[in-house]
Amino acid sequence: MSSFTDPRPPTPDPCFLRDAALDIFRHALAAVDPAEAVHRAVVRDIDRLQVHDRAYDLSRGGRVFVVGTGKAGALMAQAVEEVMGDRLTGGVVNVKDGHVAPVRRVSLNEAGHPLPDEAGVRGAREIVRLLSGLEPDDLVFCVISGGGSALLPLPVDGITLAEKQTVTQLLLDCGATIHEINAVRKHISRVKGGQLARLAAPASVISLILSDVIGDRLDVIASGPTVPDTSTFVDCQRIIDRYDLRARLPAAVAAHLDAGLAGHIPETPKPGDPVFDRVQNVLVATNLLALRAAQERAEALGLRTIILSSGLEGETREVATVYSAMAKEIRSSGNPIPPPACVIAGGETTVTIRGTGKGGRNQEFVLAAARGIAGLDGVVVFSAGTDGTDGPTDAAGAVADGTTIRRAAAHGLDAERMLAANDSYHFFQPLGDLVITGPTQTNVMDLRLLLVG
Amino acid sequence: MSSFTDPRPPTPDPCFLRDAALDIFRHALAAVDPAEAVHRAVVRDIDRLQVHDRAYDLSRGGRVFVVGTGKAGALMAQAVEEVMGDRLTGGVVNVKDGHVAPVRRVSLNEAGHPLPDEAGVRGAREIVRLLSGLEPDDLVFCVISGGGSALLPLPVDGITLAEKQTVTQLLLDCGATIHEINAVRKHISRVKGGQLARLAAPASVISLILSDVIGDRLDVIASGPTVPDTSTFVDCQRIIDRYDLRARLPAAVAAHLDAGLAGHIPETPKPGDPVFDRVQNVLVATNLLALRAAQERAEALGLRTIILSSGLEGETREVATVYSAMAKEIRSSGNPIPPPACVIAGGETTVTIRGTGKGGRNQEFVLAAARGIAGLDGVVVFSAGTDGTDGPTDAAGAVADGTTIRRAAAHGLDAERMLAANDSYHFFQPLGDLVITGPTQTNVMDLRLLLVG
Repeated sequence: MSSFTDPRPPTPDPCFLRDAALDIFRHALAAVDPAEAVHRAVVRDIDRLQVHDRAYDLSRGGRVFVVGTGKAGALMAQAVEEVMGDRLTGGVVNVKDGHVAPVRRVSLNEAGHPLPDEAGVRGAREIVRLLSGLEPDDLVFCVISGGGSALLPLPVDGITLAEKQTVTQLLLDCGATIHEINAVRKHISRVKGGQLARLAAPASVISLILSDVIGDRLDVIASGPTVPDTSTFVDCQRIIDRYDLRARLPAAVAAHLDAGLAGHIPETPKPGDPVFDRVQNVLVATNLLALRAAQERAEALGLRTIILSSGLEGETREVATVYSAMAKEIRSSGNPIPPPACVIAGGETTVTIRGTGKGGRNQEFVLAAARGIAGLDGVVVFSAGTDGTDGPTDAAGAVADGTTIRRAAAHGLDAERMLAANDSYHFFQPLGDLVITGPTQTNVMDLRLLLVG
Repeated sequence: MSSFTDPRPPTPDPCFLRDAALDIFRHALAAVDPAEAVHRAVVRDIDRLQVHDRAYDLSRGGRVFVVGTGKAGALMAQAVEEVMGDRLTGGVVNVKDGHVAPVRRVSLNEAGHPLPDEAGVRGAREIVRLLSGLEPDDLVFCVISGGGSALLPLPVDGITLAEKQTVTQLLLDCGATIHEINAVRKHISRVKGGQLARLAAPASVISLILSDVIGDRLDVIASGPTVPDTSTFVDCQRIIDRYDLRARLPAAVAAHLDAGLAGHIPETPKPGDPVFDRVQNVLVATNLLALRAAQERAEALGLRTIILSSGLEGETREVATVYSAMAKEIRSSGNPIPPPACVIAGGETTVTIRGTGKGGRNQEFVLAAARGIAGLDGVVVFSAGTDGTDGPTDAAGAVADGTTIRRAAAHGLDAERMLAANDSYHFFQPLGDLVITGPTQTNVMDLRLLLVG
């Protein structure tokens, strides 16, 4: 492999840059591998368990369980098994259909995602049953990752899953924010908003959390089953009033929220609640961690780097214009860093679907950027989801360079038309420029790279 | 004034950051002042004239004229007068209505912008008359700046201004690119696409160019009246065919393009044409120059800086999401630079108008960013046009910080609703957060600043 040791090589090798992008992505993925993340956070030496900055004494002989939810659940549970060996008593983890791994003592319960289903409810009930009647010396690992909210649906008694979904849909349709939606959902759930931690009392809880949300807010990831909740029944009331939803709420939901408001139902546990004295929430992997691993690898490859942000959001094709503008600036003036350069960012952009094509936010990002860098030498744009799945496709993302638009035209592919049709998948597929990893069973959102040689 | 000497001050002063943003903008504006830019590029010592890297001998006694077009025309002409003193013979410059300055020997001809008008045509005819019959020892300064294309309309004989505008509108309506539109416009113009330089032969031409376009392509700024043209009548034919416009073209335009294709009309002068041996095109101010001045000032104020790009484009509210993501990252992880930080960028974003409000791309950018930084301490977002005019408003732009959304709510202003209505002007006006400079008579696009204390 060639390498950039000169400050400015005369002819950047496009293959080097494309290979570098893929190589950097692989290293970033390795850093946020769920098993790797658990092993980094949890270390056992016989009876001494060290989790981040806290030590646990296992010599008193309590039982050890694993519960949890999310797409990374199988690999995280497997890693906890590896650490705890035969000290592990058992456990139940809700995972996405097909997202399994060999485990010995933990039961993996496959459930529906993104739409919650009865399999998810059954698994959640098993978890609740397992957490009932724990002792003070018992220890519960809770493994939480992306998709964990939909995969662990457990409405309070008297409300059906269908009614809970109706409420979510009503809130979505009236333009409620994700924080508003979560406030209501937590208050009609038995496990969300810190309630799982309450169910596990008086046992100790070690919650290992892999973040798939911008800002890494613990109370947001999977609706924070082990994290203090700051929202209240009063907030729910205000939200329902704000969007004038009262008349449209299922009767059981309205009755439950009213009962909560009247104080007949306990609030979700709040910050300072003693239940959290025995809970340790540990963020084991984040988008920024992936970006830092990407940065380390890019620098090892001889590239100058900056991390732009781990929280890029916004319409993907518009964010892409910022990338082509940066590519041109790096080329023409060496700002913000001179070539050979690698600009690293993460987060999760969005796509407003206007066409009937096939694609995802990462592939569409690269397609939009490909137009902006068309004709430029030594520029590569890469974007892929760390979960290996971009939109409803089998690709994680795509990669493009200054020749992409020309090569596509030779295949009869019209970038403008296909972008308008949200058909990025069929643009990159014939070019062999899809990035395909298969499901990675991790998810810390996306990685975007701009390489300028 | 407080200053950031500590690496990370405990309580960033929002007033300092807002003041700093305005101060940095003022310095950036000063660096791209048209008169300043001309004086930087053109230095005279009696009979020796030094223009950038080329020297001219004035001792042979030729006449010296100024011609030109653009919003900065008056100040540029005035500066040439100052440099040349009584060596200046005279001149004609087309400027935008009201964009005048005291001049003694140059005639400023006020014309319509953005819609060309007959006043513009009259001025262009005067310029052509002035350029006819020049001698080899004569020297012509050509001052070119933003708006220069619309302000110097001179269709070839037989085509009316109205017909030329019809062609432009047809091309716009069918989605032709700006390069396609310019190719056709240059081929039905008497002065664009290097033809002004040909008219001035055998005199020497010093073209002083203030760039208002992303990428600073000389053949694009004001349609390059003194710059070789790479487009051809054959290209025009292809463009007309591509959009199937032949039947809708005004007859005189179709006839002219046919005559050109048949070789009966000379092509615009091409790269390598001897006419350019006597032409010096000098870029006297660019967006990047403004950004560098901003950078210098920000560093003098104790801020760490990066220049992101001088070519930001795309939908302004979406580009703003990148800014709030960067603000949060600088705060949380110190990437790409730790606070106190100033991220500097330029270019020209766009607004897709969906509402009936009042605003501009800079004000709407700041409004969109204000939502993203709401509640953050020590973050300021600033965006303003260097021409002092943002959209159809009397403001150049706006400034916001983490308190803006809350302060606006106290005024009964709903950021979401006003953003949806493209009503950024009426959002910032009651807050006193508009940036008002009045017309600056320069234009190197926009300046955007993100400050994190």
